[in-house]
Amino acid sequence: MKAAILAVGSELLDPLRRETNGAYVTGRLREIGVDVFARACIADDRDWLEAAFREALARADVVISTGGLGPTEDDLTRDSAARAVGRSLRRDEGILEWLRARFARFNRVMAPVNEKQADVIEGASVLPNPRGTAPGQWLDLGGRLLFLLPGPPGEMQPMFEDQVMPILRERAGGRVLKTRVLKIASMGESDVEQVVAPLYKTFENPRTTILGGAGQTELHLTAEGASEAGVEALLEELAAGLRGLLPGRIYSEDGRELAEVVASLLRERRLTLALAESCTGGLVAARLTAIPGASDFLDRAYVTYTNQAKVELLGVDPTLIEAHGAVSEEVARAMAEGARRAAGTDLAVAITGIAGPSGATPEKPVGLVHLALSGTVGERARRAQFPGDRQRVQGQAAQAALEMVRRAVLGLSAG
Amino acid sequence: MKAAILAVGSELLDPLRRETNGAYVTGRLREIGVDVFARACIADDRDWLEAAFREALARADVVISTGGLGPTEDDLTRDSAARAVGRSLRRDEGILEWLRARFARFNRVMAPVNEKQADVIEGASVLPNPRGTAPGQWLDLGGRLLFLLPGPPGEMQPMFEDQVMPILRERAGGRVLKTRVLKIASMGESDVEQVVAPLYKTFENPRTTILGGAGQTELHLTAEGASEAGVEALLEELAAGLRGLLPGRIYSEDGRELAEVVASLLRERRLTLALAESCTGGLVAARLTAIPGASDFLDRAYVTYTNQAKVELLGVDPTLIEAHGAVSEEVARAMAEGARRAAGTDLAVAITGIAGPSGATPEKPVGLVHLALSGTVGERARRAQFPGDRQRVQGQAAQAALEMVRRAVLGLSAG
Repeated sequence: MKAAILAVGSELLDPLRRETNGAYVTGRLREIGVDVFARACIADDRDWLEAAFREALARADVVISTGGLGPTEDDLTRDSAARAVGRSLRRDEGILEWLRARFARFNRVMAPVNEKQADVIEGASVLPNPRGTAPGQWLDLGGRLLFLLPGPPGEMQPMFEDQVMPILRERAGGRVLKTRVLKIASMGESDVEQVVAPLYKTFENPRTTILGGAGQTELHLTAEGASEAGVEALLEELAAGLRGLLPGRIYSEDGRELAEVVASLLRERRLTLALAESCTGGLVAARLTAIPGASDFLDRAYVTYTNQAKVELLGVDPTLIEAHGAVSEEVARAMAEGARRAAGTDLAVAITGIAGPSGATPEKPVGLVHLALSGTVGERARRAQFPGDRQRVQGQAAQAALEMVRRAVLGLSAG
Repeated sequence: MKAAILAVGSELLDPLRRETNGAYVTGRLREIGVDVFARACIADDRDWLEAAFREALARADVVISTGGLGPTEDDLTRDSAARAVGRSLRRDEGILEWLRARFARFNRVMAPVNEKQADVIEGASVLPNPRGTAPGQWLDLGGRLLFLLPGPPGEMQPMFEDQVMPILRERAGGRVLKTRVLKIASMGESDVEQVVAPLYKTFENPRTTILGGAGQTELHLTAEGASEAGVEALLEELAAGLRGLLPGRIYSEDGRELAEVVASLLRERRLTLALAESCTGGLVAARLTAIPGASDFLDRAYVTYTNQAKVELLGVDPTLIEAHGAVSEEVARAMAEGARRAAGTDLAVAITGIAGPSGATPEKPVGLVHLALSGTVGERARRAQFPGDRQRVQGQAAQAALEMVRRAVLGLSAG
């Protein structure tokens, strides 16, 4: 089955706005084997909307629109869709009554303009909206299905899940599509590709795509089949092979980010952590404290941006900084040891580097980062050279620090 | 003039991918008074693409496509656009020669499949691509303009700027559209709306839209006119009125974020800052150190997540924590004073609060945050109650801390 998705509303064409319903619906449709062939944002214009609906229905088995179901002059979805399918609108007494009751419940009188929201295309079924005043509707046009849903995600999503998905799941004939995401830290896209391509290319199902991000690489495995269990088995077969090729490298297969994985590990093993951040400037601390209950494992973080702060707070020997520079393995190690000692934690990790754009020397270019870990699980140090601008260097350094903690706690090689 | 934008490529319909060319082109077109009425992502399918081009050209004065100009089987833009306009493709000798020379320069022989990239629609003009192998092309269909551009933003954008914009600017008849964004911290969308609506609603040009975000509100003023200077004057007239209604509230009119504004202020006045973060867990430090040269003003940050860390690092009196709790004005003030004393900076700001979801009590609900500032510019404290989940509370608290620094440095009321 092929689908088209129309997001209705001139405001969605504002360059600063991001339309999110389309991606949500696309993702859910994929899981039941329905492929989206076109996704569009259309302005609140009768002619453009009518043409968009007509075009979509000429080619797609399923057309889903979001938005334009409100009571104002600009809400043209009902009207345009009716024209596109050549049917008229009827005012639904049931919806009218429900609308009046809803307004009464909030001690308000319904303005006449709201009656428009009770208009239904001839032959369409109503999709109740428990969270707003704009009900949806759907129509079976001899096998082609048209769904009109409201725009606010908080209203659209539950209606889509509870009312649209069951209909589509049945029509899609029970085909199942599932994606599993394997996340790898501190290995670039091309390095991962080189290792895994010989394996995943031998699989037609699942299909694999590789996505690179700041400080991590993701393998997206998508399998399809007749049953949930069958698809899971296909995914697991390839995932097992990939795990073998990337031993200890895959930190997550369930959607969790690296900070969440590290937080769980520390919590499970009752380990406490302190941070000594220079070039990441609090980014590692912010990622860890974004996780609820971070106080279980995170005692404190020292953002020691100046040399003086490194000396005063972490007890780094100033002669060490003079001899090797603040960005050096020696200073990183001293920072980690100092943080652990001062905080009295099981572990401490330190990051010092040149995030740029200034501060570089011929020997120490932008992107050079030294990381060190001190703790009950041993001592480690790593030198990395990250590409990109300040923000990317900071992001990659933060990921590398978290990965260093993960590998140390799990007893994996320094990596 | 009305425009439609088509982004070509099945990969763009992946729910995890974000299509960015559309927003870029939309933003630039708006500035010359061309309104985008539809923006679509279309799969690599001949029928769907041909229909999309035909539909777009039936309604829009300008159609711009990005992507699908490569050499593979899946690159169908040239072919589909030619069918949609009912013309044939001719192989352009000039492009062929240029392609062969390009391959030779990299010591490679051009595979026959690449010759496809030299196909041009009858009557179209070539748009050279200095950064890739896929040239673009454009066609004047009796006043309606069709542009085919490559997909990679690094190739598309310079071609759009250097070759497409000059053509469109001329056709658009010199109309100018400009948006100015006024940013306000620590005031909610509805509070701002209430204050400014009576003024901005009297203006037809500029039009104003209000956007709320975590810890800030933006006013987008969009004016149009015949000249740059005229449009600027229209924007300035309304902006001046808004400044009068929101005295000291607007922190930026040039796109800068609050952290950048605070960084500039501190740098200009040669003030140094220390941070004492509890519930924001390093987020304020991370926002400030994301700015190049942050070491000019940021000495250090203490992320004191536990009570013990507050006592040890900031010298907070433990009896104060016992008496008032860690989330209290008294402790916030003691943290700020302690950080300033320990770091020896001109200013220190402290944040302590309940980010949730756990940690709340009947008297101290999730979202309660105490902020305090200590420094040469005076002492301040503020109690705030932020809505939303952990991430939103942390984001709003970080903004509030930065705004507290800005207002103190500028000598504005605590707000």
